[in-house]
Amino acid sequence: MTHAFWFGGDYNPEQWPPETWDEDDVLMREARVNTATVGVFAWSSIEPAEGVFDFDWLDRTLDRLHANGVRVILATPTASPPPWFTFAHPDALPVTSGGTRRWHGSRDTYCAAAPAYREAAKRVTSALGERYGDHPAVALWHVHNEYGTPCYCGHVATAFRRWLRARYDDDLAGLNEAWYTKFWSQNYGDWEQILPPRDTQYLPNPAQALDFARFWSDELLTAYREQRDLLRGRVPVTTNFMLPDSYQMLDFWRWGAEVDVVAIDHYLNAPGVAGTIDVAFAADRARSFNRGRPWLLMEQAVGTIWPGHGEMVVAKEPGRLLRDSLAYVARGSDSVLAFQWRAGRGGSELHHSAMVPHAGADTRVFREVSALGETLSGLGEIVGSTVRAHVAILWDADSRWALELPVTPSRHVKYMPAVRELHAAVWRAGVTADFARYEDDLSRYAVVFAPSLYLLSPAAAESLVRYVEGGGQLVVGCFSGVVDERQQAWLGGFPGGLLDVLGVRVEEFHPVVPGQTVALSSGATGRLWSEDLVCHGAEVLAAYEGGPLDGKPAITRHPHGAGTGWYVSTYPDEPTADRLVRRVFEAAGVEPELPGAPTQVEALRRHAADGRSWLFLFNHGSAAALFPLTGHELLTGRSVEGSLRLAPGDVAVIRETRPTEVN
Amino acid sequence: MTHAFWFGGDYNPEQWPPETWDEDDVLMREARVNTATVGVFAWSSIEPAEGVFDFDWLDRTLDRLHANGVRVILATPTASPPPWFTFAHPDALPVTSGGTRRWHGSRDTYCAAAPAYREAAKRVTSALGERYGDHPAVALWHVHNEYGTPCYCGHVATAFRRWLRARYDDDLAGLNEAWYTKFWSQNYGDWEQILPPRDTQYLPNPAQALDFARFWSDELLTAYREQRDLLRGRVPVTTNFMLPDSYQMLDFWRWGAEVDVVAIDHYLNAPGVAGTIDVAFAADRARSFNRGRPWLLMEQAVGTIWPGHGEMVVAKEPGRLLRDSLAYVARGSDSVLAFQWRAGRGGSELHHSAMVPHAGADTRVFREVSALGETLSGLGEIVGSTVRAHVAILWDADSRWALELPVTPSRHVKYMPAVRELHAAVWRAGVTADFARYEDDLSRYAVVFAPSLYLLSPAAAESLVRYVEGGGQLVVGCFSGVVDERQQAWLGGFPGGLLDVLGVRVEEFHPVVPGQTVALSSGATGRLWSEDLVCHGAEVLAAYEGGPLDGKPAITRHPHGAGTGWYVSTYPDEPTADRLVRRVFEAAGVEPELPGAPTQVEALRRHAADGRSWLFLFNHGSAAALFPLTGHELLTGRSVEGSLRLAPGDVAVIRETRPTEVN
Amino acid sequence: MTHAFWFGGDYNPEQWPPETWDEDDVLMREARVNTATVGVFAWSSIEPAEGVFDFDWLDRTLDRLHANGVRVILATPTASPPPWFTFAHPDALPVTSGGTRRWHGSRDTYCAAAPAYREAAKRVTSALGERYGDHPAVALWHVHNEYGTPCYCGHVATAFRRWLRARYDDDLAGLNEAWYTKFWSQNYGDWEQILPPRDTQYLPNPAQALDFARFWSDELLTAYREQRDLLRGRVPVTTNFMLPDSYQMLDFWRWGAEVDVVAIDHYLNAPGVAGTIDVAFAADRARSFNRGRPWLLMEQAVGTIWPGHGEMVVAKEPGRLLRDSLAYVARGSDSVLAFQWRAGRGGSELHHSAMVPHAGADTRVFREVSALGETLSGLGEIVGSTVRAHVAILWDADSRWALELPVTPSRHVKYMPAVRELHAAVWRAGVTADFARYEDDLSRYAVVFAPSLYLLSPAAAESLVRYVEGGGQLVVGCFSGVVDERQQAWLGGFPGGLLDVLGVRVEEFHPVVPGQTVALSSGATGRLWSEDLVCHGAEVLAAYEGGPLDGKPAITRHPHGAGTGWYVSTYPDEPTADRLVRRVFEAAGVEPELPGAPTQVEALRRHAADGRSWLFLFNHGSAAALFPLTGHELLTGRSVEGSLRLAPGDVAVIRETRPTEVN
Repeated sequence: MTHAFWFGGDYNPEQWPPETWDEDDVLMREARVNTATVGVFAWSSIEPAEGVFDFDWLDRTLDRLHANGVRVILATPTASPPPWFTFAHPDALPVTSGGTRRWHGSRDTYCAAAPAYREAAKRVTSALGERYGDHPAVALWHVHNEYGTPCYCGHVATAFRRWLRARYDDDLAGLNEAWYTKFWSQNYGDWEQILPPRDTQYLPNPAQALDFARFWSDELLTAYREQRDLLRGRVPVTTNFMLPDSYQMLDFWRWGAEVDVVAIDHYLNAPGVAGTIDVAFAADRARSFNRGRPWLLMEQAVGTIWPGHGEMVVAKEPGRLLRDSLAYVARGSDSVLAFQWRAGRGGSELHHSAMVPHAGADTRVFREVSALGETLSGLGEIVGSTVRAHVAILWDADSRWALELPVTPSRHVKYMPAVRELHAAVWRAGVTADFARYEDDLSRYAVVFAPSLYLLSPAAAESLVRYVEGGGQLVVGCFSGVVDERQQAWLGGFPGGLLDVLGVRVEEFHPVVPGQTVALSSGATGRLWSEDLVCHGAEVLAAYEGGPLDGKPAITRHPHGAGTGWYVSTYPDEPTADRLVRRVFEAAGVEPELPGAPTQVEALRRHAADGRSWLFLFNHGSAAALFPLTGHELLTGRSVEGSLRLAPGDVAVIRETRPTEVN
Repeated sequence: MTHAFWFGGDYNPEQWPPETWDEDDVLMREARVNTATVGVFAWSSIEPAEGVFDFDWLDRTLDRLHANGVRVILATPTASPPPWFTFAHPDALPVTSGGTRRWHGSRDTYCAAAPAYREAAKRVTSALGERYGDHPAVALWHVHNEYGTPCYCGHVATAFRRWLRARYDDDLAGLNEAWYTKFWSQNYGDWEQILPPRDTQYLPNPAQALDFARFWSDELLTAYREQRDLLRGRVPVTTNFMLPDSYQMLDFWRWGAEVDVVAIDHYLNAPGVAGTIDVAFAADRARSFNRGRPWLLMEQAVGTIWPGHGEMVVAKEPGRLLRDSLAYVARGSDSVLAFQWRAGRGGSELHHSAMVPHAGADTRVFREVSALGETLSGLGEIVGSTVRAHVAILWDADSRWALELPVTPSRHVKYMPAVRELHAAVWRAGVTADFARYEDDLSRYAVVFAPSLYLLSPAAAESLVRYVEGGGQLVVGCFSGVVDERQQAWLGGFPGGLLDVLGVRVEEFHPVVPGQTVALSSGATGRLWSEDLVCHGAEVLAAYEGGPLDGKPAITRHPHGAGTGWYVSTYPDEPTADRLVRRVFEAAGVEPELPGAPTQVEALRRHAADGRSWLFLFNHGSAAALFPLTGHELLTGRSVEGSLRLAPGDVAVIRETRPTEVN
Repeated sequence: MTHAFWFGGDYNPEQWPPETWDEDDVLMREARVNTATVGVFAWSSIEPAEGVFDFDWLDRTLDRLHANGVRVILATPTASPPPWFTFAHPDALPVTSGGTRRWHGSRDTYCAAAPAYREAAKRVTSALGERYGDHPAVALWHVHNEYGTPCYCGHVATAFRRWLRARYDDDLAGLNEAWYTKFWSQNYGDWEQILPPRDTQYLPNPAQALDFARFWSDELLTAYREQRDLLRGRVPVTTNFMLPDSYQMLDFWRWGAEVDVVAIDHYLNAPGVAGTIDVAFAADRARSFNRGRPWLLMEQAVGTIWPGHGEMVVAKEPGRLLRDSLAYVARGSDSVLAFQWRAGRGGSELHHSAMVPHAGADTRVFREVSALGETLSGLGEIVGSTVRAHVAILWDADSRWALELPVTPSRHVKYMPAVRELHAAVWRAGVTADFARYEDDLSRYAVVFAPSLYLLSPAAAESLVRYVEGGGQLVVGCFSGVVDERQQAWLGGFPGGLLDVLGVRVEEFHPVVPGQTVALSSGATGRLWSEDLVCHGAEVLAAYEGGPLDGKPAITRHPHGAGTGWYVSTYPDEPTADRLVRRVFEAAGVEPELPGAPTQVEALRRHAADGRSWLFLFNHGSAAALFPLTGHELLTGRSVEGSLRLAPGDVAVIRETRPTEVN
């Protein structure tokens, strides 16, 4: 198994007759599939009635896959309780923030805080663990699926209060102070008076809402850990994180510490290069949540893209499956797994993309899948190697949660786009970025970006100050350092805690109406946000032009200690962001992964502990690119002597014999 | 009464003082009104308290109308239970899919599956039937009004389970298989666990949702039949179908078999020619639901149009009332009825258009109404004649329901627009189309169109194959033959069951983002949808140009047996659709109703059993049209010898002495 | 205190430590703050548990403020019940029209009709009244905050029935007739069957909905009066009206009669001149609700503007705070108060604008606040003087409520925009307008405008007829006189009751699709609405051109008695509205406040009983304006002899020595 990428997908033989199983065996061999994820959502097949188990089909599946050389990722089915469960325990159905109950008939129809649900989940998990813990096919336990389903019921209220008592050391006055309950007469006289942030008459209390988001991430994590602890043994245990996480809003830093390996589901949100950057964003986050170690791509759709808001899919461009799959690999994934092996004939996701589509194996999709399997089979030597990044982007679950609340000066300013835009600028600069937390050792990064770090605790501010004083280049985005960890405002000017480092002080916010822009000197523009900024030592790199902020600083730089604090008080247009990022990299001595590569060529590298390295090259342009390069190209199996020609849309993977350089 | 079109409208004397009744008598005579629909929504006037009946006003109304020469369509008032009913039976109020109860204070505030409601409906219906079954004024029973109100309460759950037990022969395993419940762990262990498709956490089960739509159509039909059976006797019984049916989504084929005559309500959705096509669409469906026999236009608005989504009305253009009314007649209606005679002074619909507006009889509206009455009085000889169509468009309630569910590759692709666009192309070709089901005898049609027949059962596929083999021209639109009657996918390529007939095989869907287009050869474009199509014998009529499908077939033709299968893998632009339709008609030898007529002239024809026929001509253009024509023009009462001049906006009705031809 | 404008804002020392109080004292003196509103929303600080009061902090606050020369507006905190109240009385939480309960965790989480709430509100109010009724700091009682929270629960149903019994003299048949319950079978057989207009299956009964709106305004007014009566004594009592009142839809004419002084909250909805007109609209309404006497601006935001729909704020332009504040004053306010003194650190409104922002006193905002304080301190002589208007705009709560209901021909036609557009045209003409009711003495106005007076009772019609017959110029806007006070249509043509006065008769409505226009003669256009109008004596000032109304009258004038009735059957474009308004003013002899002033200069005037007057001049243009003027300019303290130069954005306040005239 070592030195082979995990390749395959979710596999649901229980939905098919035995004839199809035979065909599966044949087609899996044809496509070089070596991994199958089994059992996700199969609760009613495993436990058709309370306490009654049917393992026959699962026994046969695992044996058959094992005989066919396919490893199994075995899932607990707890993300979809069967109707018999709901029928017996209606109190374990989820309740919306508006107070109405959701019913069974889909998946995720459970309240994770309901005792009956937790007991039932543990029972089925134990049964699976006992029966298959030693099965040789099983290579990984996969708990549940994409945790995240919200609930606001009474069970949740009880659990929330328990969590709050722990967080506030049983000190109700402390909670009242943190939640600023003197505002709008919300002082709690008893723990029992506290509710989840259910729909209320007007604006919610942001501190209550933020604590609830933290609590729910933790409560789900506790539910995960209960299952994990029942399964731990011979093989590692994980659960799949859904990225991008509009659906699931969890604190993945905390979750990353509790899984044996981070595994992500990633569904592309755009065709073209925007989709390529989306792959990078997901992969860089996955690697970072896994603390830099190789991680697993647990689900992708081999054939489809979800642009916009889930109302439709578009077909993946020919060739894209290979390119994207190798991009995940180049950014640290040791697997290329898909949802799903075979397109289901029925059910809610009957139109979900699959490795074997409804039209069968004689299709472009299956041919691309097979070609991908063959390609991966030639890259096994790369498995286990890692990615090295010299710059980091802060990722802060608290800031994200806080900026979702309807209490900020502009509901159009959110955390995720701010981070994505910054990450995209770094991508365009040809540099690989990690994500990091303030608690991490930032000193190993030459540059740290902090886009819209709205929530900044004193401890986080201290860490960033230390980083700059130690020589780091810190680039802070607008609307940062506004509130502390209780969502109470920093007083005396923003970004709170960083005034000295940045040499600036924001007096007042000037949100910009969507669709409008604010002009900066030298023809640049900003969007969505601007700030009335006063320099206290910082150098002005760009100023506002026209409007109420005319002539005031917009982008600044401030040497501090051995490092530099940069501040950007608006969301700059792409060229401006690109210029700034390159200027910072120059100041920090950060070079692109392949210096001198044409802009349309993406270069990524994995490094083995023994000094070997592999250079991944992707030509996203419409013209061929010619590289001065020497090494062994693994996809063609040919040596590259002096130069490599990469056709549009092509990928090359070079085992490097010496450090690569472009003249 | 024979040989007179039914002309009049809904009449609510209970809302007015006796002085107004006298004026009504005068004005009805003035406008040549001969029909009044009485009693719709009058429950609380008929039965002011449970079991207490007040027939006095109704006795007087029927006697008075009868004396005035006005026939009565007598309605049961069950579409709006009185407050006393709701107050006594809150469990009979409707419940939304989200689980909240709706209250009285409007109309339709009942659950049709609630036993208390059904009993109350039968009681008031019986009382009406007993009292007025033999009243000479009564010419038609009108049950309820526009059935369709949804409910998801416990009574509905019980009825749904009963319906499912019947459909699946008490075989729960069969239901589980049909519903594909192994997906997402939805296996039902007991009938009691099954629910209506109430709001759930994520995507619904499409098979459950489709069965619920079928069930609800049937449940309402059962409620209708209960009343019908109590009323049947001297005069026929019907209920009014609301077309277009965004509000009511019933299987009108099944309903059409249970009414003595199909009666529709039709509210225009657009001004201009688009509205004219909307009239044709409603009328052609009404005639088809009534198996080709003359039908009744039960409600229209004499003065207003509802463009868009019900947020406003616009005034009907002068002259439009006459044109549209004669268009319904030309397409087979034996009535021109309106909601309503007199504009109500108060209530939710106080601004609804009426034959006598608030401003009174000295208004353009009432003058147009009177002119219409006079015109109709000269056309009586046409009553009872029928329309002959040589082409058919398939109308499939299942496909429509299925494409409403949020589980398809694009929520922008719906059934209704696909059918409407095809029907409009046939209209522009000057050809009258029936709608048909696969169960019907299709061999009598030279051409059958199947736009987006997403759901195609094996039996339906077999019928279409037989049709082509027997010599028919079958034109199949994109996204057809995707699932079977259980909403499980056809395997091996689409359109399932029609691969041999069409000589093509769809491997993969390529949905198109709304607002974007996909280019076809010869400058044509497609919208919303495209497909990766492989020809297996078919001739390519148009290919995709550019994009991932470049050079692949888009529109194809395939001789099969004695007929031809045509396939269109996108939604073509209007000129392309028009060219294709004309090409198919040429191949099938189908001619327009009036060959050679200018495009802005609509020609329609009714045929009597005795060989007489009447040609209706409408000039929708802005210039006069000159026709070579001979016959007797009924509106002017003049003979047409050799040629007819039709001014813009004008209508002519020709009693033909010999087959009409244009040189 | 006399002869000083009240200047200051909401003050919440309970949210801050004592150190901050000391700073508050210093900064208030610096900014010349003389007024603080204390206690709004402080219930849980005043009564931390049921019946347990903590007055310590409030005692200290009042004493401290008094010592610092700051008067106190003392609020009852009843707009936000504490969690202990909700926990004990969940039945007193508000319930939506959909039937779901809203929870605590915000403000306004109460049902004003719940007995438990009313009792609790009276208890805390009594306690405050007893303790502070004689405190010398207290200058005004401020009951509650921005009444308006809706509820549809059982308590509300009970109160609604009680109100209806009173309105209809216990005559259920009268209610049934007024509500037109014969339509859709809504006849009520018992008072108990009547419900609030909760969500129902289809369109609501408009008469029920309108009576509910009236009832709820009255029910909240009763709740207010209960508190007022407990507090009345040494100092006046008021509550703050929220204007514009999208949030609160109350009948402010009735409320204005029950407060000792009208106090409004006004949050600007647009930057630029549109915002200036918004100030005028709020201020003119406030003055009118207060029957012309000086009123109080109770809340504004010193730094922010809410454009659009509450999704974001933008920063107020530099200088705008002064201009707007003096505009409120020029239109009759004797105060310039803000929400709030100091920006809260936490809670839902932590980003709400404040006089002391988070960034502290060293900010543009606080500098502008201090400058404003200084400016106001020089204008004390103006306090108590009044505004004189010669034209009036009718403001009718009934018409507004009625046009919010979804039963009209176009949901795009609402009352508020119709009134705002008319008011803006009068503003552009340089004329100050009052708002008035038909019950008021209209004869003191030279012109009365009635924009879209949809609901017109016979009594109102009679008043308007009398006004014209007595010599008034009455300008009636389209869609007026359509229904009476029961929302039953006027019969025989619209505007009902005004046919003779206007010499026209509307036969039919022709709503216009938003975004489209209808052409009028001489190049003018109308929007949203047009009408099929017949003249019966009126002169046509403009006719429709093209379309179905081609050549028909659009704008008319009709001499009647000693006056004239003008009618405008569409919403005209701005230039057309402006021309019409000027023409009417000419006919009525109404002159602008400063005849001959350049259009970009706004001129307003306050008059003292002793004959003194003050002219306020605002230059909203981008160029300086030069005035022939003589008087004493109060802001600079300089005499103006013959001419005044006003820079762009500048304000002047002239104590006039003789009537001002421009040559």
